[in-house]
Amino acid sequence: MTALARLLQHYRQRVEQQLDQLITPDQQLEPRLQQTMRHGLLNGGKRLRPALVYLSHQLCSGREPGVLTDRAAVAIECIHSYSLVHDDLPAMDDDDLRRGQPTCHIAFDEASAILAGDALQCLAFEHLSAPLDGVEAALQLRMLNTLARASGERGMVAGQAFDLAHVDKPLTLDQLQAMHACKTGALITAAVELGALSTGNVGADTLADLRHYGDLIGLAFQIQDDLLDIEGDTATLGKPQGSDLAQNKPTYPALLGLDGAHRRLEQLHEEAVAVLSAYGEDAQDLIALTDYIVHRDH
Amino acid sequence: MTALARLLQHYRQRVEQQLDQLITPDQQLEPRLQQTMRHGLLNGGKRLRPALVYLSHQLCSGREPGVLTDRAAVAIECIHSYSLVHDDLPAMDDDDLRRGQPTCHIAFDEASAILAGDALQCLAFEHLSAPLDGVEAALQLRMLNTLARASGERGMVAGQAFDLAHVDKPLTLDQLQAMHACKTGALITAAVELGALSTGNVGADTLADLRHYGDLIGLAFQIQDDLLDIEGDTATLGKPQGSDLAQNKPTYPALLGLDGAHRRLEQLHEEAVAVLSAYGEDAQDLIALTDYIVHRDH
Repeated sequence: MTALARLLQHYRQRVEQQLDQLITPDQQLEPRLQQTMRHGLLNGGKRLRPALVYLSHQLCSGREPGVLTDRAAVAIECIHSYSLVHDDLPAMDDDDLRRGQPTCHIAFDEASAILAGDALQCLAFEHLSAPLDGVEAALQLRMLNTLARASGERGMVAGQAFDLAHVDKPLTLDQLQAMHACKTGALITAAVELGALSTGNVGADTLADLRHYGDLIGLAFQIQDDLLDIEGDTATLGKPQGSDLAQNKPTYPALLGLDGAHRRLEQLHEEAVAVLSAYGEDAQDLIALTDYIVHRDH
Repeated sequence: MTALARLLQHYRQRVEQQLDQLITPDQQLEPRLQQTMRHGLLNGGKRLRPALVYLSHQLCSGREPGVLTDRAAVAIECIHSYSLVHDDLPAMDDDDLRRGQPTCHIAFDEASAILAGDALQCLAFEHLSAPLDGVEAALQLRMLNTLARASGERGMVAGQAFDLAHVDKPLTLDQLQAMHACKTGALITAAVELGALSTGNVGADTLADLRHYGDLIGLAFQIQDDLLDIEGDTATLGKPQGSDLAQNKPTYPALLGLDGAHRRLEQLHEEAVAVLSAYGEDAQDLIALTDYIVHRDH
């Protein structure tokens, strides 16, 4: 096991333990709601966004993360999970499987999946706004506003709406890029920002650098996603290989060619690493995560 | 026009002007998303929850509401509107009309309605967390947490999940009451709480009184809703009269009889007014609103 793999496992376990305690079906009005939420949230995800939160915190502070960083990691993952639950719905991408498991509306039912997604989004904001001893309210509020702006009508949801509206329609490279900057990029950048903000004393320059890094890696993440859909295999992916192609979705390889997409990915990778390299030793783990995101096989 | 009608119109206009400016389809990535959000938000609602926010503020302070109270009124209405957009979906209540207009998934499409609801929820939290000069961050954070707790898996969404899981199943009066305490009650109580909190200096006793008032009026609101479904007429209601009965939904009249439901409504009305009466002159408008909620014809 590499040092990065050990670190990712450490942070995955750290965030999953909290996610597991967050939602309890016992003694709830309608336990099926909480069961559906848990199905959507605790489904073997890689927890890359929480890892970005933790490692961005490390880059800025060199210290172990505390409870505010934990809160941000959990909130980001709640938003990400809710978006997947709703994305999979019949009226949206209509997916039966995610990570090899039945999606929420298959395992439960459509109404439960809609409501579980709604409740997961709400829980992100509830969790990040709950009182915290020794933390400045202004900082919590700023983090919350950062998360909300990234998730909503000018962020993630805008990207999803644009994506659905353009199935079977040709896109320019600029349009594709604008779509992914919202759909996946906004939340990835927010993860990096929240990690930095959670240190309580990040400077404006560092924050700008990390935002820039987040934008680069968000785009790289999506290009690698597109490439995996063509070059990966179904068993490793946990979803059918070639599904973008089958659904006639616009992708980077479709617009840039396979080689062009690989070249663009390497360019973004280099730029992202260059931004981080200025931060020396404390940036090494985030650089390793960046390498992993670009070269991952699922 | 009665004094209360003038006041409700004043606050309705005040909140609608803000809602209208909140979402702009121009120069957005996918303008259809913002158009769907506006359809769900600006549909001729009575804006009772914002009125509760404003009049609760007035009871506590005797002053004109400021920008923090406006923020709360807008956020509450975004949450309420998103819940209606999702409630109307085919997988949920499957309603084609709301207030005489096509529902979001009819006027647009199902995916747009899901995403518009998601974005409206997010916007509530974005709006209430945006920086505000001269307002304590701790207060904003507390209001945000109050709204989130009322809206999510132990509040409004829990009530909706319970409701959907019990269509065609008999409920006891306790179960019906627990369901409505979540489904409609939690957000109504939150409206009253947020109005009080937005004064910046509400005492714990007053807050407890107003919470109690909110619980009473939330229940009364629902009983009157059930009674209107039997005794109202379709044109005034803007939805088919008798639709609860047709869908075999559990209601107060079904469990208590028509007379019993009317008696329970009057009891709650008296208790609610008794709580407010201790607050003298500044409570008069909220008392008038209470009378209106209990005796409204749509």
